[in-house]
Amino acid sequence: MPELMPADSVGLVEPKVIPFDQSLSLNCGERLEGFQLMVETYGELNHSRSNAVLICHALSGHHHAAGYHSMADRKPGWWDNFIGPGKPIDTRRFFVVALNNLGGCHGSTGPTSINPETGKPYGPDFPMVTVADWVNSQVMLADHLGIAQWAAVIGGSLGGMQALQWSIAYPERLRHAVIIASAARLSAQNIAFNEVARQAILSDDQFSGGRYLEENNIPRKGLGLARMVGHITYLSDDAMGAKFGRELKNAGFSYDYNVEFQIESYLRYQGESFSGSFDANTYLLMTRALDYFDPASDYENSLPDALSRATASFFLASFSTDWRFSPERSREIVDALTGVDKDVTYLEVAAPQGHDAFLINIPRYVRGLSAYLNRVAQECL
Amino acid sequence: MPELMPADSVGLVEPKVIPFDQSLSLNCGERLEGFQLMVETYGELNHSRSNAVLICHALSGHHHAAGYHSMADRKPGWWDNFIGPGKPIDTRRFFVVALNNLGGCHGSTGPTSINPETGKPYGPDFPMVTVADWVNSQVMLADHLGIAQWAAVIGGSLGGMQALQWSIAYPERLRHAVIIASAARLSAQNIAFNEVARQAILSDDQFSGGRYLEENNIPRKGLGLARMVGHITYLSDDAMGAKFGRELKNAGFSYDYNVEFQIESYLRYQGESFSGSFDANTYLLMTRALDYFDPASDYENSLPDALSRATASFFLASFSTDWRFSPERSREIVDALTGVDKDVTYLEVAAPQGHDAFLINIPRYVRGLSAYLNRVAQECL
Repeated sequence: MPELMPADSVGLVEPKVIPFDQSLSLNCGERLEGFQLMVETYGELNHSRSNAVLICHALSGHHHAAGYHSMADRKPGWWDNFIGPGKPIDTRRFFVVALNNLGGCHGSTGPTSINPETGKPYGPDFPMVTVADWVNSQVMLADHLGIAQWAAVIGGSLGGMQALQWSIAYPERLRHAVIIASAARLSAQNIAFNEVARQAILSDDQFSGGRYLEENNIPRKGLGLARMVGHITYLSDDAMGAKFGRELKNAGFSYDYNVEFQIESYLRYQGESFSGSFDANTYLLMTRALDYFDPASDYENSLPDALSRATASFFLASFSTDWRFSPERSREIVDALTGVDKDVTYLEVAAPQGHDAFLINIPRYVRGLSAYLNRVAQECL
Repeated sequence: MPELMPADSVGLVEPKVIPFDQSLSLNCGERLEGFQLMVETYGELNHSRSNAVLICHALSGHHHAAGYHSMADRKPGWWDNFIGPGKPIDTRRFFVVALNNLGGCHGSTGPTSINPETGKPYGPDFPMVTVADWVNSQVMLADHLGIAQWAAVIGGSLGGMQALQWSIAYPERLRHAVIIASAARLSAQNIAFNEVARQAILSDDQFSGGRYLEENNIPRKGLGLARMVGHITYLSDDAMGAKFGRELKNAGFSYDYNVEFQIESYLRYQGESFSGSFDANTYLLMTRALDYFDPASDYENSLPDALSRATASFFLASFSTDWRFSPERSREIVDALTGVDKDVTYLEVAAPQGHDAFLINIPRYVRGLSAYLNRVAQECL
């Protein structure tokens, strides 16, 4: 809890539900007849409506990117390090829009929402959504907010994929794409980790074919396991070693399957707390959206061809010990962009934290992103 | 099935049960009053009993390291690439002993064995065994076979840890330790993967507190998940990419949680076939043995101090893309050994296959190991 609100915080913020009564056709062939998005905004839209930036979230993120919902909150929004007055995404200069994606479990229409056709939660009947679907829904959000062109679309990890998709699908609707710790598509290993997470959820006997909410239940163990697997991939081997090493929970070994090492305690805690706060069907859906993303596939597997449509300028950043989306994966995008003569700035940051680094105040990263967004802000004047 | 037995095969082999009626005190404080080990041997013990080598197996291995049990076998033993006449572990020169470790599920006393006190399978009551316990039981095996000193103790991965432990605990009983793709102890990340595997098994509702055999059942899903996680760590990102890439199972996406990508199909198959052939309690126990192994911990966390007791010569090998036990982990052992003036040969092999490389015929690896073992064999004459 902030006793006094920090001076560089956006302060108390309020999420807002935005209903859409237009239908949305999805990649999977199904159609949503209306939906809602949960949104937060920080800062003010300027007179020329030119200073709006969109924050796209990663796998387990949501609309609450910065500030506090009440003075009793222990923690601010998930990217509060980066959004606020004087921070890289400076709310004195930008009008910042953050949303919970379609299919999410934080207020936007998703598997936990009531299916109007049945009066029960959608559960497994919620249609599969893709990164392209998300961007289409975000275009409707932009229209609703009267934003013809984003100053920037910004995201890390799966969020970066959305920024990339924006630049290809709606080139005229953004001036900058900021793509951090991301990739143009998953590798076989990335998909393999997602598949383990999905199988953990699907094979939990409390999953009930996805209709657990109707039974007042949740597949706690499966979702916890999925999160444990995820967490291993978010941290570097070194970061985990530095944080936990082989430190024991108690003085000696107990020679059983209870917690012996601190790393076990950490993982179990992460799994348990996540499984109480996130929806399993949403987790399945988000991992599939990751798997399916591959914008080059529409261009005979040529990423340069896909990106040749883009008119935005690009900023990419990656982190040396990120083994989920390694610097090599960012360089693939950078090389594809430079190959088709796009304007691209690339920052490779030496950081021990692994994939999680994109959430962390790392001086060189903060300075690089700030410098780039300063340029973006100057164009908005 | 070999239509004709290959000329460089050890041919048809027969496993043998060796009972021990002595008691064995275990690290965990419990004691086994007698046990049995399942063993295979290849080649002939020479007159001076100086040409015996011990093969230690890894997590899911066993006594059947080479040859065939019948002409109908589709596959030979797990390290048949390396054991046979003219192969690196040349059975014309060495008497090769391979065993299933205590706690295993391939014929040695373990959780699937009948507990004489209850008349039912041990299940979760089988005591925790450590690498040091295994080596103690292997000493009893050596005594039984009349082998005062092994020409070499050889192992990959967890097997390499046993060779390392031999060199420290029983320096006078081996002339060479051959340690391949191994480590002196697990990292936090290694333990984390093991913990996910264990939680998958423990949280399977068919696990029944480990007493599934009494209920004529197996925790198939949990064990399958554990194996899927393991498989990801056995292959390199590149190897998985080269083998599966983003190849689809069918012509297009079906937008559901059935198999979309070949890598999913592969992992599910690996998980399912393993869960039908391996014991879950044994899997738990083997992963814990990995976690606990840390010979330096008895020497104020100084690996050089631990290794200063050794009198064997050492051969170590590692593989460039092995991220389970990376070359760095082998170099730690090499540096510790050279720091205390031990005789050590180290081979770092460029290989795309990841951890699994230690099982594969890679020319430079085969040549290096052959050259070293040729030296070992010449000393046996």
